[in-house]
Amino acid sequence: MELDEQTLLATNERFYRAFAGGDLAAMEDLWAHQTPVVCIHPGWSRLSSRETVMTSWRRILSGEGHDVSCGDAQAWVRGTMGMVVCREQVGRIDLLATNVFVVEGGRWMLIHHHAAPVMPDEEPGPEESSSGHGLPN
Amino acid sequence: MELDEQTLLATNERFYRAFAGGDLAAMEDLWAHQTPVVCIHPGWSRLSSRETVMTSWRRILSGEGHDVSCGDAQAWVRGTMGMVVCREQVGRIDLLATNVFVVEGGRWMLIHHHAAPVMPDEEPGPEESSSGHGLPN
Repeated sequence: MELDEQTLLATNERFYRAFAGGDLAAMEDLWAHQTPVVCIHPGWSRLSSRETVMTSWRRILSGEGHDVSCGDAQAWVRGTMGMVVCREQVGRIDLLATNVFVVEGGRWMLIHHHAAPVMPDEEPGPEESSSGHGLPN
Repeated sequence: MELDEQTLLATNERFYRAFAGGDLAAMEDLWAHQTPVVCIHPGWSRLSSRETVMTSWRRILSGEGHDVSCGDAQAWVRGTMGMVVCREQVGRIDLLATNVFVVEGGRWMLIHHHAAPVMPDEEPGPEESSSGHGLPN
Protein backbone atom coordinates (compact mmCIF):
# COMPACT_ATOMS: atom_id res chain seq x y z
CA MET A 1 0.00 0.00 0.00
CA GLU A 2 1.29 3.42 -0.91
CA LEU A 3 1.39 5.54 2.20
CA ASP A 4 0.13 8.71 0.60
CA GLU A 5 -2.83 11.05 0.99
CA GLN A 6 -5.04 8.81 -1.13
CA THR A 7 -4.53 5.70 0.98
CA LEU A 8 -4.89 7.80 4.11
CA LEU A 9 -8.25 9.10 2.90
CA ALA A 10 -9.28 5.55 1.99
CA THR A 11 -8.45 4.42 5.52
CA ASN A 12 -10.39 7.35 6.92
CA GLU A 13 -13.39 6.23 4.86
CA ARG A 14 -12.99 2.71 6.23
CA PHE A 15 -13.27 4.22 9.69
CA TYR A 16 -16.60 5.86 8.83
CA ARG A 17 -17.86 2.68 7.14
CA ALA A 18 -17.05 0.73 10.31
CA PHE A 19 -18.82 3.40 12.36
CA ALA A 20 -21.88 3.56 10.07
CA GLY A 21 -22.05 -0.20 9.77
CA GLY A 22 -21.75 -0.80 13.51
CA ASP A 23 -18.83 -3.09 12.66
CA LEU A 24 -16.78 -3.47 15.83
CA ALA A 25 -14.30 -5.92 14.29
CA ALA A 26 -13.53 -3.47 11.48
CA MET A 27 -13.25 -0.69 14.03
CA GLU A 28 -10.83 -2.69 16.19
CA ASP A 29 -8.78 -3.47 13.10
CA LEU A 30 -8.34 0.25 12.39
CA TRP A 31 -6.79 1.30 15.70
CA ALA A 32 -3.05 1.09 16.30
CA HIS A 33 -1.55 -1.59 18.54
CA GLN A 34 2.06 -0.48 19.02
CA THR A 35 1.43 3.25 19.35
CA PRO A 36 -0.53 4.72 22.28
CA VAL A 37 -4.00 5.80 21.15
CA VAL A 38 -6.32 8.54 22.31
CA CYS A 39 -9.95 9.32 21.50
CA ILE A 40 -12.15 12.30 22.27
CA HIS A 41 -15.80 11.69 21.47
CA PRO A 42 -17.99 14.82 21.37
CA GLY A 43 -18.02 16.30 24.85
CA TRP A 44 -16.46 13.25 26.50
CA SER A 45 -13.29 13.16 28.52
CA ARG A 46 -10.16 11.97 26.80
CA LEU A 47 -9.85 8.19 26.53
CA SER A 48 -6.18 7.27 26.69
CA SER A 49 -5.77 3.55 26.29
CA ARG A 50 -6.66 1.10 23.56
CA GLU A 51 -8.87 -0.74 26.03
CA THR A 52 -10.97 2.29 27.01
CA VAL A 53 -11.15 3.46 23.39
CA MET A 54 -12.38 0.06 22.25
CA THR A 55 -14.85 -0.12 25.12
CA SER A 56 -16.24 3.22 24.00
CA TRP A 57 -16.67 2.01 20.43
CA ARG A 58 -18.25 -1.24 21.60
CA ARG A 59 -20.79 0.87 23.45
CA ILE A 60 -21.38 3.30 20.59
CA LEU A 61 -21.61 0.61 17.91
CA SER A 62 -23.91 -1.60 19.96
CA GLY A 63 -26.62 1.06 19.70
CA GLU A 64 -29.20 0.93 16.95
CA GLY A 65 -28.60 2.54 13.55
CA HIS A 66 -25.64 4.74 12.85
CA ASP A 67 -26.62 7.35 10.35
CA VAL A 68 -23.05 8.53 9.95
CA SER A 69 -21.32 10.05 6.97
CA CYS A 70 -18.08 11.83 6.30
CA GLY A 71 -17.35 14.60 3.83
CA ASP A 72 -14.93 17.34 2.83
CA ALA A 73 -11.95 15.32 3.99
CA GLN A 74 -8.52 16.95 3.78
CA ALA A 75 -5.37 14.90 4.28
CA TRP A 76 -1.83 15.70 5.41
CA VAL A 77 0.98 13.14 5.24
CA ARG A 78 4.55 13.42 6.50
CA GLY A 79 6.36 10.10 6.27
CA THR A 80 4.68 7.63 8.59
CA MET A 81 2.23 10.03 10.20
CA GLY A 82 -0.90 11.50 8.69
CA MET A 83 -3.90 13.60 9.62
CA VAL A 84 -7.37 13.87 8.17
CA VAL A 85 -9.75 16.71 8.99
CA CYS A 86 -13.31 16.11 7.84
CA ARG A 87 -16.94 16.91 8.32
CA GLU A 88 -19.05 14.28 10.08
CA GLN A 89 -22.77 14.09 9.89
CA VAL A 90 -24.34 11.94 12.61
CA GLY A 91 -28.07 11.96 12.18
CA ARG A 92 -28.86 15.64 11.82
CA ILE A 93 -25.87 16.75 13.85
CA ASP A 94 -22.94 18.39 12.08
CA LEU A 95 -19.53 17.73 13.56
CA LEU A 96 -15.93 18.26 12.60
CA ALA A 97 -13.36 15.57 13.22
CA THR A 98 -9.61 15.30 13.39
CA ASN A 99 -8.29 11.80 12.80
CA VAL A 100 -4.57 11.06 13.17
CA PHE A 101 -2.88 7.97 11.84
CA VAL A 102 0.55 6.34 11.92
CA VAL A 103 1.98 3.52 9.86
CA GLU A 104 2.14 0.16 11.62
CA GLY A 105 2.86 -3.02 9.70
CA GLY A 106 2.76 -1.13 6.42
CA ARG A 107 -0.77 0.16 7.02
CA TRP A 108 -2.33 3.41 8.23
CA MET A 109 -3.62 2.85 11.75
CA LEU A 110 -5.67 5.30 13.81
CA ILE A 111 -4.04 6.77 16.89
CA HIS A 112 -6.50 9.60 17.53
CA HIS A 113 -10.10 10.57 16.82
CA HIS A 114 -11.38 13.94 18.02
CA ALA A 115 -14.93 14.86 17.06
CA ALA A 116 -16.93 17.87 18.18
CA PRO A 117 -20.17 19.48 17.09
CA VAL A 118 -20.28 22.62 14.97
CA MET A 119 -22.86 25.19 15.90
CA PRO A 120 -24.76 25.89 12.68
CA ASP A 121 -25.64 29.37 11.50
CA GLU A 122 -23.74 31.10 14.24
CA GLU A 123 -21.29 33.88 13.85
CA PRO A 124 -17.83 32.63 14.83
CA GLY A 125 -16.88 33.96 18.21
CA PRO A 126 -14.08 33.91 20.71
CA GLU A 127 -12.52 30.68 21.98
CA GLU A 128 -13.78 31.61 25.44
CA SER A 129 -17.38 30.94 24.54
CA SER A 130 -18.72 28.06 26.61
CA SER A 131 -21.02 26.73 23.95
CA GLY A 132 -18.52 27.37 21.24
CA HIS A 133 -20.50 29.97 19.37
CA GLY A 134 -19.70 33.59 19.59
CA LEU A 135 -20.69 36.08 22.14
CA PRO A 136 -21.74 39.37 20.61
CA ASN A 137 -18.90 41.86 20.38
CA MET B 1 16.56 22.15 18.07
CA GLU B 2 15.96 18.46 18.66
CA LEU B 3 12.71 17.51 17.01
CA ASP B 4 11.47 15.24 19.74
CA GLU B 5 8.52 15.07 22.13
CA GLN B 6 10.15 17.54 24.53
CA THR B 7 10.62 20.28 21.96
CA LEU B 8 7.14 19.57 20.62
CA LEU B 9 5.66 20.06 24.09
CA ALA B 10 7.73 23.23 24.53
CA THR B 11 6.29 24.58 21.26
CA ASN B 12 2.81 23.64 22.41
CA GLU B 13 3.41 25.64 25.59
CA ARG B 14 4.58 28.59 23.50
CA PHE B 15 1.22 28.42 21.73
CA TYR B 16 -0.66 28.69 25.02
CA ARG B 17 1.62 31.49 26.23
CA ALA B 18 0.88 33.42 23.03
CA PHE B 19 -2.83 32.76 23.54
CA ALA B 20 -2.80 33.71 27.24
CA GLY B 21 -0.63 36.76 26.60
CA GLY B 22 -2.75 38.02 23.72
CA ASP B 23 0.48 38.05 21.71
CA LEU B 24 -0.53 38.04 18.04
CA ALA B 25 3.06 38.26 16.75
CA ALA B 26 4.04 35.17 18.74
CA MET B 27 0.90 33.42 17.51
CA GLU B 28 1.66 34.27 13.88
CA ASP B 29 5.20 32.99 14.36
CA LEU B 30 3.88 29.60 15.47
CA TRP B 31 1.77 28.76 12.44
CA ALA B 32 3.25 27.06 9.38
CA HIS B 33 3.88 28.94 6.17
CA GLN B 34 4.67 26.22 3.61
CA THR B 35 2.12 23.66 4.77
CA PRO B 36 -1.64 24.28 4.52
CA VAL B 37 -3.11 25.02 7.94
CA VAL B 38 -6.51 24.38 9.47
CA CYS B 39 -8.10 25.52 12.71
CA ILE B 40 -11.31 24.52 14.47
CA HIS B 41 -12.18 26.80 17.37
CA PRO B 42 -14.86 25.46 19.74
CA GLY B 43 -18.09 25.17 17.76
CA TRP B 44 -16.79 27.18 14.82
CA SER B 45 -16.63 26.03 11.23
CA ARG B 46 -13.29 24.85 9.94
CA LEU B 47 -10.91 27.64 8.95
CA SER B 48 -8.75 26.44 6.09
CA SER B 49 -6.28 29.10 5.12
CA ARG B 50 -3.50 30.86 6.97
CA GLU B 51 -5.27 34.15 6.34
CA THR B 52 -8.58 33.10 7.91
CA VAL B 53 -6.82 31.34 10.77
CA MET B 54 -4.77 34.46 11.53
CA THR B 55 -7.84 36.67 11.25
CA SER B 56 -9.54 34.46 13.83
CA TRP B 57 -6.61 34.76 16.24
CA ARG B 58 -6.44 38.52 15.69
CA ARG B 59 -10.07 38.68 16.73
CA ILE B 60 -9.68 36.32 19.70
CA LEU B 61 -6.50 37.93 20.99
CA SER B 62 -7.81 41.46 20.64
CA GLY B 63 -10.36 40.72 23.38
CA GLU B 64 -9.61 41.55 26.98
CA GLY B 65 -7.86 39.06 29.27
CA HIS B 66 -7.15 35.52 28.26
CA ASP B 67 -7.31 33.32 31.30
CA VAL B 68 -5.96 30.34 29.38
CA SER B 69 -3.92 27.44 30.60
CA CYS B 70 -2.87 24.08 29.26
CA GLY B 71 -2.31 20.84 31.14
CA ASP B 72 -1.95 17.07 30.85
CA ALA B 73 -0.22 17.36 27.49
CA GLN B 74 0.67 14.15 25.68
CA ALA B 75 2.94 14.20 22.63
CA TRP B 76 3.43 11.91 19.64
CA VAL B 77 6.26 12.41 17.16
CA ARG B 78 6.97 10.55 13.92
CA GLY B 79 9.79 12.18 11.98
CA THR B 80 8.73 15.65 10.94
CA MET B 81 5.14 15.46 12.14
CA GLY B 82 3.89 15.60 15.70
CA MET B 83 0.68 15.79 17.68
CA VAL B 84 -0.13 17.10 21.13
CA VAL B 85 -3.38 16.33 22.92
CA CYS B 86 -3.97 18.44 26.02
CA ARG B 87 -6.47 19.90 28.38
CA GLU B 88 -7.28 23.60 27.98
CA GLN B 89 -8.83 25.72 30.63
CA VAL B 90 -10.27 28.97 29.33
CA GLY B 91 -11.78 30.88 32.21
CA ARG B 92 -13.91 28.27 33.92
CA ILE B 93 -14.48 26.27 30.74
CA ASP B 94 -12.75 22.91 30.35
CA LEU B 95 -11.78 21.97 26.84
CA LEU B 96 -9.67 19.34 25.13
CA ALA B 97 -7.41 20.27 22.27
CA THR B 98 -5.59 18.48 19.50
CA ASN B 99 -2.65 20.42 18.10
CA VAL B 100 -0.73 19.10 15.10
CA PHE B 101 2.69 20.32 14.04
CA VAL B 102 5.15 19.78 11.21
CA VAL B 103 8.78 20.73 10.90
CA GLU B 104 9.46 23.78 8.75
CA GLY B 105 12.87 25.45 8.75
CA GLY B 106 14.07 23.16 11.52
CA ARG B 107 11.25 24.18 13.88
CA TRP B 108 7.91 22.75 14.95
CA MET B 109 5.17 24.78 13.32
CA LEU B 110 1.43 24.46 13.95
CA ILE B 111 -0.71 23.18 11.11
CA HIS B 112 -3.87 22.42 13.09
CA HIS B 113 -5.62 23.42 16.31
CA HIS B 114 -8.89 21.72 17.23
CA ALA B 115 -10.43 22.66 20.57
CA ALA B 116 -13.78 21.62 21.95
CA PRO B 117 -15.47 21.80 25.33
CA VAL B 118 -15.77 18.83 27.63
CA MET B 119 -19.03 18.40 29.43
CA PRO B 120 -18.10 18.05 33.10
CA ASP B 121 -19.58 15.41 35.36
CA GLU B 122 -21.51 13.75 32.60
CA GLU B 123 -21.62 10.08 31.90
CA PRO B 124 -19.94 9.44 28.55
CA GLY B 125 -22.53 8.72 25.92
CA PRO B 126 -22.86 7.91 22.27
CA GLU B 127 -21.22 9.96 19.54
CA GLU B 128 -24.71 10.80 18.27
CA SER B 129 -25.45 13.09 21.20
CA SER B 130 -25.96 16.64 20.01
CA SER B 131 -24.53 18.25 23.09
CA GLY B 132 -21.82 15.67 23.36
CA HIS B 133 -22.97 14.17 26.63
CA GLY B 134 -24.72 10.88 26.74
CA LEU B 135 -28.32 10.09 26.18
CA PRO B 136 -29.60 7.62 28.72
CA ASN B 137 -29.40 4.04 27.51
